[in-house]
Amino acid sequence: MALIVQKFGGTSVKDRSRIFNVARIIMNTRNAGHDVVVVVSAQGDTTDDLIAKAAEISSSPSRREMDMLLASGEQISIALLAMALQELGVSAVSLTGWQAGFNTDRAYSRARIKRMDTERVESELARNRVVVVAGFQGLNRSDDITTLGRGGSDTSAVALAAALHADRCQIYTDVEGVYTADPRKIPKATKLKEITFDEMLELASLGAQVLNNRSVELAKKYNVELEVISSINPVPGTVVKEEANVEGMLIKGVAKDSDVAVISVKNVPDVPGMSFKVFSLLAQRNINVDIILQSSGAEGKKDLSFTVPLGDAESAVAALQNGASRFGGGEISVDKNCAKVSIVGAGMQSHSGVASTMFEALFSQNINIKMISTSEIKISVIIDEQDADKAVAAIHDAFIN
Amino acid sequence: MALIVQKFGGTSVKDRSRIFNVARIIMNTRNAGHDVVVVVSAQGDTTDDLIAKAAEISSSPSRREMDMLLASGEQISIALLAMALQELGVSAVSLTGWQAGFNTDRAYSRARIKRMDTERVESELARNRVVVVAGFQGLNRSDDITTLGRGGSDTSAVALAAALHADRCQIYTDVEGVYTADPRKIPKATKLKEITFDEMLELASLGAQVLNNRSVELAKKYNVELEVISSINPVPGTVVKEEANVEGMLIKGVAKDSDVAVISVKNVPDVPGMSFKVFSLLAQRNINVDIILQSSGAEGKKDLSFTVPLGDAESAVAALQNGASRFGGGEISVDKNCAKVSIVGAGMQSHSGVASTMFEALFSQNINIKMISTSEIKISVIIDEQDADKAVAAIHDAFIN
Repeated sequence: MALIVQKFGGTSVKDRSRIFNVARIIMNTRNAGHDVVVVVSAQGDTTDDLIAKAAEISSSPSRREMDMLLASGEQISIALLAMALQELGVSAVSLTGWQAGFNTDRAYSRARIKRMDTERVESELARNRVVVVAGFQGLNRSDDITTLGRGGSDTSAVALAAALHADRCQIYTDVEGVYTADPRKIPKATKLKEITFDEMLELASLGAQVLNNRSVELAKKYNVELEVISSINPVPGTVVKEEANVEGMLIKGVAKDSDVAVISVKNVPDVPGMSFKVFSLLAQRNINVDIILQSSGAEGKKDLSFTVPLGDAESAVAALQNGASRFGGGEISVDKNCAKVSIVGAGMQSHSGVASTMFEALFSQNINIKMISTSEIKISVIIDEQDADKAVAAIHDAFIN
Repeated sequence: MALIVQKFGGTSVKDRSRIFNVARIIMNTRNAGHDVVVVVSAQGDTTDDLIAKAAEISSSPSRREMDMLLASGEQISIALLAMALQELGVSAVSLTGWQAGFNTDRAYSRARIKRMDTERVESELARNRVVVVAGFQGLNRSDDITTLGRGGSDTSAVALAAALHADRCQIYTDVEGVYTADPRKIPKATKLKEITFDEMLELASLGAQVLNNRSVELAKKYNVELEVISSINPVPGTVVKEEANVEGMLIKGVAKDSDVAVISVKNVPDVPGMSFKVFSLLAQRNINVDIILQSSGAEGKKDLSFTVPLGDAESAVAALQNGASRFGGGEISVDKNCAKVSIVGAGMQSHSGVASTMFEALFSQNINIKMISTSEIKISVIIDEQDADKAVAAIHDAFIN
């Protein structure tokens, strides 16, 4: 007998039939002898509907009132799911975020969990009830409702699993697990049985949007074993944990991220403080810089190239142009026709030849590499956007199939 | 400068334009120098939509989960109204029932308020904010959400006004106040400036469905001055208070109630305990009996006649037939073609001739009286349903116009 936290997203509870589907998954877990705590998001389009209602009232509603408004969405889904469980004969009780003990900071719409107070959840478990908890929401020190922002329900589930010392936290989704590449693009992509937290973090940040990064970080911090699993097809999913069985796999996945622009600043004076001056301009606008490459240019000058999210490219160029005097001019250019293709695998750090295998695969397709970035468990290249799918297929072939 | 509690029903906040209409009423009250606490119901059809969602899941959902579900409705409307106030430049904050300190008993779906904890509301008022409170809901001692049942938001408003020692509690509705008769039927009906709690209670129970009886009882108990007022037409409404200025008006209203059936039990043995035996059969089925009339029948026998709500008539007759042996047989008949017409007025108790004026008005229309019932501030007659409107008009003419 184990304690399992199960998280279901908004699509999984969008209507009567999906709610009963979820209730049966929970019932089966219960019948297998486990204690179950469930974390649920708002139903299907509820959050969008509520946002639309607010937009009718104000173009910039207060964040506190938005959180008050949006938190009603999960309150509806937890009540309906508890009813469905009871209808199946499973003893169940619903709890809002504040009832379940989610204490957060004051940052409305993007609050962070400060402390879990699990007394109520534990007392309901002791009464042999399935506890259905509203994800995405908490309470701040002023007793006001907060929400956790994007992917908040995943974070709720992991935080609850950590606080309850649950044996596993299952994240139910529309996919069957984590794949070696996007299965819609690469038919040969295979589902991973296991993956480490670090590999998952690299894959998530590279555009394999299965799990929210914040929840993986939290799971890693508190060593909560995650499972990404399908709510439609009842087969084992992918387990995310500290040490994964690599089974001879050097790399765990090939990911493509097209949300990338490369910005170049040429002929920056080669004196101390120039990089700081360039990147502080971007930090002021909250623009995240990913890969950075510095090369020597003309005499006494250097060139800087870096990637930013595509949507931030114009803003980044404007910031650089406005502040150009700070770093002594320089020719600023932007290339929006880029993609980042990466391989991730904890195994690669102890194996030589991984990079060269990747570059060989790209060369075999005559694909030009614009930038390269490496970490202990990841190699990323920036290439032309139109080559990206071909690149992923070739790299996947070289390493996995 | 006064403290005013304003209550708005679901129709008043059903869409964007109605929400802003309400926000402007509040803003005007605020601009007149008053502190304002607002109590709001769920938007228009929200509660019905939520009930329909629950009905899809279960034919008999748990009351606890229903309350969890339904309470989300007011949470939406308070957030939207607070946003609208802020959009108009009025400082405002929304509070759920539990945040506003409504402590109730455990009776889900029909909870009663046990204690008000006004600390939060008072601290928000001290910050010069309009406080927008969710009506209809509270929290029980287990920290679970409860709802107050039908007319609950009126009750919330009065309870809050009592606890805050508010100067007035305004109940905004679709009508302009309390009338001497139903203005859709009696064009000459006039709006009352003032009415006593007792008169309002008699009128409410007689079918003039302006205010929920429970809220009037609560207002009377804590001496909270109520005002029934239109949210559409900004004119003074009707004030309900302990002592009303009668202005020479003997009666305050003429009311018709067609939801009445007369049941007669003839030839019951005239020995002690027979009335108890008859009426305990009805109490077992939770059937409320209103007017009771007892007359002597054949030798050693008596006849009992009484009124019940029309929808309970069949059930009452069945109960009496099943238990007929307990009161020695008796001939049971039912008359569903009845109406109760009543006059209400605190002034009548000190004036003779009120009853005779009423009966004269009925006689002038050749209307036969089947039963008569009187209290200190009310006279009711049971007549044929088809005579009811004519009776109301004649009585209204005799007393008011």
